[in-house]
Formats: sequence, structure tokens, C-alpha cells
Amino acid sequence: MTLPVTISDVEAAAAAIRGQVVETPFPRASTLSEITGADVALKLESFQFTASFKERGALNRLLKIPADARSRGVIAASAGNHAQGVAHHAGRLGIPATIAMPETTPFSKITRTEMLGAEVLLRGETFADSYGVAQHLAEESGATFVPAFDDPAIIAGQGTVALEMLGARPDLEVIVVPVGGGGLISGVATVAKAVAPAVEVIGVQTETYPTMLAALGRAGSVPGGPTIAEGIAVEDVGALTREIVAALVDDIVVVSEQRVEEAMSLYLEIEKIVVEGAGAASLAALLAHPDRFRGRRCGLIVSGANVDLRVLSSVILRALARSGRIVRLRVEIPDRPGALAGVAQVVGAERGNIVDVAHHRDLPGVPLRDAILGVSVETRDRAHADAIVASLTAAGYPVTTA
Amino acid sequence: MTLPVTISDVEAAAAAIRGQVVETPFPRASTLSEITGADVALKLESFQFTASFKERGALNRLLKIPADARSRGVIAASAGNHAQGVAHHAGRLGIPATIAMPETTPFSKITRTEMLGAEVLLRGETFADSYGVAQHLAEESGATFVPAFDDPAIIAGQGTVALEMLGARPDLEVIVVPVGGGGLISGVATVAKAVAPAVEVIGVQTETYPTMLAALGRAGSVPGGPTIAEGIAVEDVGALTREIVAALVDDIVVVSEQRVEEAMSLYLEIEKIVVEGAGAASLAALLAHPDRFRGRRCGLIVSGANVDLRVLSSVILRALARSGRIVRLRVEIPDRPGALAGVAQVVGAERGNIVDVAHHRDLPGVPLRDAILGVSVETRDRAHADAIVASLTAAGYPVTTA
Repeated sequence: MTLPVTISDVEAAAAAIRGQVVETPFPRASTLSEITGADVALKLESFQFTASFKERGALNRLLKIPADARSRGVIAASAGNHAQGVAHHAGRLGIPATIAMPETTPFSKITRTEMLGAEVLLRGETFADSYGVAQHLAEESGATFVPAFDDPAIIAGQGTVALEMLGARPDLEVIVVPVGGGGLISGVATVAKAVAPAVEVIGVQTETYPTMLAALGRAGSVPGGPTIAEGIAVEDVGALTREIVAALVDDIVVVSEQRVEEAMSLYLEIEKIVVEGAGAASLAALLAHPDRFRGRRCGLIVSGANVDLRVLSSVILRALARSGRIVRLRVEIPDRPGALAGVAQVVGAERGNIVDVAHHRDLPGVPLRDAILGVSVETRDRAHADAIVASLTAAGYPVTTA
Repeated sequence: MTLPVTISDVEAAAAAIRGQVVETPFPRASTLSEITGADVALKLESFQFTASFKERGALNRLLKIPADARSRGVIAASAGNHAQGVAHHAGRLGIPATIAMPETTPFSKITRTEMLGAEVLLRGETFADSYGVAQHLAEESGATFVPAFDDPAIIAGQGTVALEMLGARPDLEVIVVPVGGGGLISGVATVAKAVAPAVEVIGVQTETYPTMLAALGRAGSVPGGPTIAEGIAVEDVGALTREIVAALVDDIVVVSEQRVEEAMSLYLEIEKIVVEGAGAASLAALLAHPDRFRGRRCGLIVSGANVDLRVLSSVILRALARSGRIVRLRVEIPDRPGALAGVAQVVGAERGNIVDVAHHRDLPGVPLRDAILGVSVETRDRAHADAIVASLTAAGYPVTTA
């Protein structure tokens, strides 16, 4: 059986794009290795200029456009990293670029793509709408349509990341790859199975969008909806990518939204890097399925870092709350002067740091002469939070944690 | 005049610590170059294992302890990066380490140092208290006291960062260095003036702690108080560092707390890296004094990344508010059904995204039948925020921005 992309295509792509994309670092991560029990190295595609691997495929595709067609420009449909990859390299090559995005696209994504020199068209409610608009426009104008994943040149370009990984660490045993439309994992599996067939290639999808698994008949349904890992939330995979994944990929594991958030906050706190949800999915897989990776030399593709700062801030606060480092207490207090001071004294004596206070008097269920005090307390860890709750209870303040 | 540290000391330190600390990346930053007008490269000491340059000096000092003294251990006083640098390398070398910290030290810093294998003693209200305790303990126990900056071996170790910078980019014109006690800039200036005397070495302090400038008689006072750049907030500089800085450093510039916060959020948003306040001071200098650096090849030392996640989250939200990407509106509405819908419709028509709403009815100054609606709106930029305010006003809703 001949697959649509070969190792020679990827090697040609590597030669074509060399020096025009970043050969990203691939350091070992010793603390994350301790946490996960695996031997972890991180391929930091988040350090590409537009902060994702998407540049590799986009540039390889752009370089194949004949000279006489370049002036008619390129069109893509994407609200995400593909948009930025196309915009940046089209700009560098002097090719006019138009990107169609849904009307609901967040401002930050529109602005960033425009700043890279592309024209952004806001069209349609859904991504499928924008995709249709983009294809129609390409047909009308003679511009070249640049798909996000289902194209041999795109897949070959994405595969170059695996050439770098296996070149730098020939003893890798597993490559862990976030999976959306399947372009990245198709390229990676093409390389791994040609160069180092013993290397396991494992894909990662979220519980919200197990689209590739569904396409392979291995997931009942795709629930969809809001997700922290937008970059791998697709409605449909590609025909080419589905074929390659079916033939070459060893397995695809599923992770929860919460594991992805945990991985994002570990990257911030331990590795001191910003990683978007999709980019953190590979680490989430190690957190969710530790037995599967324990003791093995794993190369995790950290595929991108384009995350809204507001989302990042929420991820941080939720992580602190989850690990007990910020605990929200509901304390019943008599509604009279000095009551807050009493609670504050107990918390302070336990060396908890009160960061936020709210009084509620008019809630149903609150006795007339009592009040509910909502207190957020910064603590060392879960055990410290428990000790504070115990002290408040012992001091006669009924308390529950929210 | 002979200074207390020479280039040979730094070269010896480089040989001694090689392979035991990270030779950190020093990439060019093209977007930050555009923003600042300078030609910016970033020396990412934030990617040391304990996320700061402090390991260089600490390790160099530890390696000079005679074999027979190692078993008596080392003691340091630090609540910050020096503590982690000492703890990590003492642990690696099998030297028992004790770190004295003030009783008010945040949990995250205590935990991190303990996890690196050191014993943490919480002693005294201020850093000066802990310092006294640590020195006293060292005298009593025969342990070696490891100062944070005022020591020739520490200074020589910190200087190794400049050897790497000038080795990688011999055409550098300026090195920009955050200044606390002065250990880092003393080492850097020792190297620069010996190896590349034309290179300007410029220090950066905050308006809150211009301690080195004051020590040199060039600042009236040190206001002190809370600062986002804790890592360079010192009460006293060293005697050796003061002498070296006076002799070799070209200038020290001052930046506001707000510039430091701006720099931190630029690192997150553009470079996708976490940088602590002190570490961001060098970029803050370029933002605050653009004329001084315009068009010049500047190497910025990004000295560390140890920042509390809660602080990081606040920096993000404040940055969004400052740049107009989250705007807080106070809208006067009649207190009746449908009023909120009216406001929401106007904001939505302008494509503003409401992220938070609060009603206030019982504030002084609110007419009896009116209410104040507090609305946080996510916007593209300042101009977009202004347009939303104008539309609300035109629709008959009196509005002010908070």
C-alpha cells in the first residue's frame, strides 16, 4: 500500500524550509520526569516565531506555489495557529494572504493575524462557514487555497519536527503528539516508521473532541462544546490524515479538560513557559496514563503557545484552587462587630493568608442574626487548608469549603 | 587600582562550573526589537534548573569549600533565588544546606527550597534578622556561610553569564543587567571591560529600591516598600560590589513598577516565557528609556523566573486592563426589568464581550429608582473601548470608566 506522504517528501520539506523556521530546542525536563515517572524531553514548537509548529507545513506548501501563481495570493480558513503560520510566511515571501475566520473569533487572534500582514475576513458563524467562504473565494480569484492539514505538502512539512527529534535523540522510545485534524501526527508517524520503526507514536485527543478516534470507528461520539484545547478541536479530520493515522499510528489516548489545564499550569510553574491547551495535551497524556509511559524515553511535542492571556489567568487561579493553595471557605458568623476579626485571627494563627473576603447576609438559609463570610485563603497545600478548617471548627465557627 | 575580582577569576569559575549549570539560550527577539526600537537578544537565565542565574555564583562558591569542611555544611540567608541555587547545588554535591528565611516568607518559596533538599529555618521579621541568625549559626556550627552577592567567588560565578553572551554575540554593544546587591552586574562588568571594553554595561533598578544608586551617592533615598521586583529589592548593597560597580559600570537607570509589569506581560504574550519582576527589569529599561538603546545591539539578562502564580495572574489582568483590553464600566440604569438587556445589547452590537457584571443599588449617590451596573468588557484595544462608551452614552446610559 502506498501512503500519500513518504519519508522522502518529509526530507525534501526539511531541506526546503531549513533556516526559515526555528529548529526548536528539545531539552530534557527532569522535574516533569520525576512527576510523571517517564523520561521526558520537550520539543518546544511553542518557540516558533508564530508560536506553533504550523509554520512548517504552511511554509512547505507556500514554497510549492509556482512563481506565476504567487501574485494571485493565498487564502486559508483558520482562526488559529494555521492562520498565523500562513500569514507570516506569505508575508516573508511577498505573497498576498487572506484568512477567513468565523465572526465569533476572539479579538486577539484577529489582531495577531493582521499584524503578520494578512487580510482577515470575518465570515460565517462556524468554522465550516468560513471554510466554505475561503474555498469559494479561492476559486473565484485564482488564489491558492492552503488547507490546514489535509494536504501532502502540509503533512510533509509538519513531519520535519520528527526528523529533528530523532536526530537529536536517536534513543527515543515514544513520541507523544496532540491530534486535531491529524496533519502533525501524520507527518511524525511517516518519519518515525521509516527512520525508527520501534518508536511508538501515540496521539492525544481531549474527551471533548475525540474526532480522529471517531473517524477510525474507535469513539462513539464527539461531544464537542467549549474546550481549553481549541487548537485540536476539529469537527472533521482529513481523508489523507485519517488514512495515514490508521496505517502508522500506534495508539491515540484521551485526556480530560482538567488534565490539560493541569499540564498548562505545570509548564508555567516548573518549565517557566507558556503553553496553549492543545500544546499541553501531550503532557496531559502522561499525567492521565502514567503506567503507559513509566520509565520510557518520551519526546513530547509542545505544539503551540497561543493562548489568550485571560484564559491563562483563569487556568492559573483554577490550578491554585485545585491544589488547595487557594481555598474558598464559607464560615457562619454571628452578624456583629468583631466577628470577622475572630475568624481572621484563627486563620492568621495557622499562618494562612486571607486574600479575599465577602459578607453575605441575605441568602436563603442564613439565620436572621447570622451572616455567611466567604473567605479565600492562600495556603501551603491541601493539608494546610485542612488544618485551617479544623481550627475554625474548633473555635466554634461552622465552616464548609466551596 | 586592583579590583577584588579579575577576568581570570571569572574564567576559572566558568571552567569550574561547566556542565553543572545550563549554558542558557541567547536568542534574538525580533518582535521585542520592533517594540523597543533596539536590536534585542535575551540571555535566558530563567531556564537554569532553579530558574535564575544565582546558581552560577553559588556553585562556584560551594566548589571552593575544602573537602574537610564540606561535612559541616553550608548556611545561607535568602528567601529567593540564592536560596534555591545554594540548596540545589549543595544537594548535588552532598553538602548539607540550611537556609534562613524571614518568618513572613511566602509558602511557595519555602516549599521550593525544601524540595531541593535544604533545611529551611524561619527566623526573624526582616531579612536582616535572618541574615544575623544565619551568620551566628555558621559561627557556632562551623558551617560555611554562603553570601548572596558580596563575595569574590560569587561575583566571579555570576560573571560567567557575560562570557557566554560575548562568546555567542561578539558584536554586542550594550549589556543590560538588573541590579540588586550588585553581584551579577559586578561579574558582568568585570568580563565586559576586560574582553570587550567598548561594550556598555548598564544596570537597572526600580524606583522603589534604587539601593546601588543611593550607595554611589546618586539617589537621594530608597523609598522601599512592596515591589513586583523582589529579586532586586535589597536594603544594602555589598562593599565589594559597590567598589566594582563604581569602577566599571557605565550607568544605572531607574524604572517604575509599572514598566516592570509591562515587561513581564510582554514576555508572556510575545516570547511565551514566564519571567519574574527582577528578570523583566532589563526589558523595562528599554521600554522606559527607548532613546538610550535605539538601534543598538543590546543583550538583556533575563535573570530569573521565580514568580508566584497568583502574582503572575494579577500581572496579566492588570496588563489587560491597562491596555484597554478589559475595560470596567459604571453604567447608570433604571432599576427595572430589561435594563441589563439594554446595556448588553449596545455592548454586543459594538462586538464587545461582557465578562463580568455586578448590580449596585444601595450606594450613596445612586438615585432611589436607579441602579449602578458594573460591567467588565473585553475589547480589542483602547479605541474599541472608547467606541463602546460612546455608543452607551448615545443610547442614553450615563457611563464612566473605572
